[in-house]
Amino acid sequence: MSKYKIGLFGFGCVGQGLYKTLSENNADAEIVKVCVKNKEKKRSIEAEKITYDAAEILNNEDINIIVELIDDAKAALEIVRAALKKGKAVVSANKKMVAENLDELIALQKQYETPLLYEGAVCGSIPIIRNLEDYYASEQIEEIKGIFNGSSNYILTKLFQEGKSYEEALGEAQANGFAETDPTLDVGGFDPKFKLSIILQHTFGIRQHPENIFNWGIQNISEKDIAFAKERNLKIKLLAKAHFDGKVLSTLVAPHFIDEQNPLYHVENEFNCVLINGKYASNQTLIGKGAGSLPTGLAVLSDVIALTQGYTYRYKSADFTSGGSQAVEVYLSFNDIEDIDKNAFTSISESYIGSDYGYIIGKIELEALQQLLNGSSGVNVVFTSGKQTEIEIPNLTYSYAN
Amino acid sequence: MSKYKIGLFGFGCVGQGLYKTLSENNADAEIVKVCVKNKEKKRSIEAEKITYDAAEILNNEDINIIVELIDDAKAALEIVRAALKKGKAVVSANKKMVAENLDELIALQKQYETPLLYEGAVCGSIPIIRNLEDYYASEQIEEIKGIFNGSSNYILTKLFQEGKSYEEALGEAQANGFAETDPTLDVGGFDPKFKLSIILQHTFGIRQHPENIFNWGIQNISEKDIAFAKERNLKIKLLAKAHFDGKVLSTLVAPHFIDEQNPLYHVENEFNCVLINGKYASNQTLIGKGAGSLPTGLAVLSDVIALTQGYTYRYKSADFTSGGSQAVEVYLSFNDIEDIDKNAFTSISESYIGSDYGYIIGKIELEALQQLLNGSSGVNVVFTSGKQTEIEIPNLTYSYAN
Repeated sequence: MSKYKIGLFGFGCVGQGLYKTLSENNADAEIVKVCVKNKEKKRSIEAEKITYDAAEILNNEDINIIVELIDDAKAALEIVRAALKKGKAVVSANKKMVAENLDELIALQKQYETPLLYEGAVCGSIPIIRNLEDYYASEQIEEIKGIFNGSSNYILTKLFQEGKSYEEALGEAQANGFAETDPTLDVGGFDPKFKLSIILQHTFGIRQHPENIFNWGIQNISEKDIAFAKERNLKIKLLAKAHFDGKVLSTLVAPHFIDEQNPLYHVENEFNCVLINGKYASNQTLIGKGAGSLPTGLAVLSDVIALTQGYTYRYKSADFTSGGSQAVEVYLSFNDIEDIDKNAFTSISESYIGSDYGYIIGKIELEALQQLLNGSSGVNVVFTSGKQTEIEIPNLTYSYAN
Repeated sequence: MSKYKIGLFGFGCVGQGLYKTLSENNADAEIVKVCVKNKEKKRSIEAEKITYDAAEILNNEDINIIVELIDDAKAALEIVRAALKKGKAVVSANKKMVAENLDELIALQKQYETPLLYEGAVCGSIPIIRNLEDYYASEQIEEIKGIFNGSSNYILTKLFQEGKSYEEALGEAQANGFAETDPTLDVGGFDPKFKLSIILQHTFGIRQHPENIFNWGIQNISEKDIAFAKERNLKIKLLAKAHFDGKVLSTLVAPHFIDEQNPLYHVENEFNCVLINGKYASNQTLIGKGAGSLPTGLAVLSDVIALTQGYTYRYKSADFTSGGSQAVEVYLSFNDIEDIDKNAFTSISESYIGSDYGYIIGKIELEALQQLLNGSSGVNVVFTSGKQTEIEIPNLTYSYAN
């Protein structure tokens, strides 16, 4: 009999991944009960382990670890709250739930002296949260960024490598289990924003609610945008970025042009990549699968094992001011120039206007860009940064967050 | 006053890196004494902290952490032994000392219940040992390999990118503090072998003494070898590799041809890269600076902080048989075909014989290759594997360790 008894919520892609990886490990932990919603679905676990009643797990005093792997962020929060209040250690892979409620979750952990771990919520198989908490705690990190969404990266790879249509590529990503139930979270750039919000806490000790992070996704990328990138030997990658100079924090999630010299150029399909830039070790790169049953299952399992070893997050904290006036340089494409308020740009270095497609490359404040995007239809934006340093596209140099 | 008082041995490149990173962190540890050898050298630390007598540190009961950062592996072992026997926790960055004496060091840790950590000994700033101990402990790793020597990689980068001579490139690496005092350890492929030996212990729970690992370095690479690679759009990288199928272990250190599709192709200068291939998460990549004062200083500091938090290695163990009969496919170049025993090859797919340069591409058993290299002069060998999967050069497919 194991010392650690797990009550599992959700038996989808990641839940099954945990089940398999745990069954093949000799961890001092076993899944004793699994709570699922759908009574019709056939399950590959013993019937006596299945329950449809959350209370049956939460009120079971033998269960000392709750693993929460359901899609619904609201229901997940209820489960995690209840578990922590009962003194049960918790593992979650729900990035939306964690990112939106981190203040409360930190307070609950403190009040009930019960840990919550969520490695599986951030970049799938990449052990980023624990490395930030432990190894990089002594590093003076200035920038952290990367490809945080496997589903979008899979779609972009198919668009660029195989010339597939957006719809085809999205369908494939979903069929392969790389996309969340609601694809908007992935392709709209919300999912990487949740992850960035969580990462900020562990990198800089800064709490920033995801709703305060700019995001633009990949769902508006047109064939013309792809052609523009290909002509210049660039790819488009959806990046999440955070820069902190010790005082001012700049964050954003947006598609970026990336050139061949950039390590991110070579990160394809469902792979994620985290780039850490610090004062001592300069550039550190971590690449791994950002989605999928077993990769994310492994991350969840590593949290379970960490709990059995008494591991908890430390949650350092820092003062900061949010960088309200980020100047960025972007390629903005549109169907009709009449829809675009050109005055929103502080400078324009290049523009093209055709009958049903045009673009402007120029500098703009992030807030002005947000307003422009909100007020226009048929537009898309790609940021022109790519390299660790700077990338030039004709007549244009972009430097990030200054 | 800090709870943890450090006695530091050695104040070279890495020692100074530790001093700086520690002084800028609010760790509960301070360096109270530094033992150095050379009385003539000017030091950038307070005179009263300096001693030339090891016993002054080892017998100081206030000192509870010993950090050993000297070049001499034999002297380093004496210090670490003495410290562990006195119950002082130890951090070392001496890969040769750790790799050659790991059995004894594990036994001493057990007997005296005192931890030894050595993240800084393996791949500089990359947090590989702790990730193997913690996160990847639940992964079923099949292969681990990569670029483990910053100095060699720096030299190879200069040879390929800037067309420098071998001597020029080596001089630059030494001037930049990327090469050890004795360059043979780096360029002869010994240093990556020490690291591979240590990694084997933490990846598979397997103890293999470095002297049982095949190694061939980069010091014999000729302009002709470089031209051969460049004509085929390949680079040469010095790789360390280990494959374990649960029973048979295969290991080697050797230069390899690498094509553009391989992530290792883009790892340049003093950067190191570790590729982990596991059953659950498939490919994981970690890239960071493999040498240098602050990058390695950071790794040592992370060990010091880990000690203050009660961290120790767990040292799992596994049964295995060493794979004595590895068949490899290599490019062997020579000045004079008369020096080469062609019968050592089990098959030859391509050969070229000129007046003062020639090569054979063929299959050979690793032991036969070792004998051939031992018995010949003016030869060089480059392994033809490169990709995660397989790479083809004309008429040739290489698959690793079968």
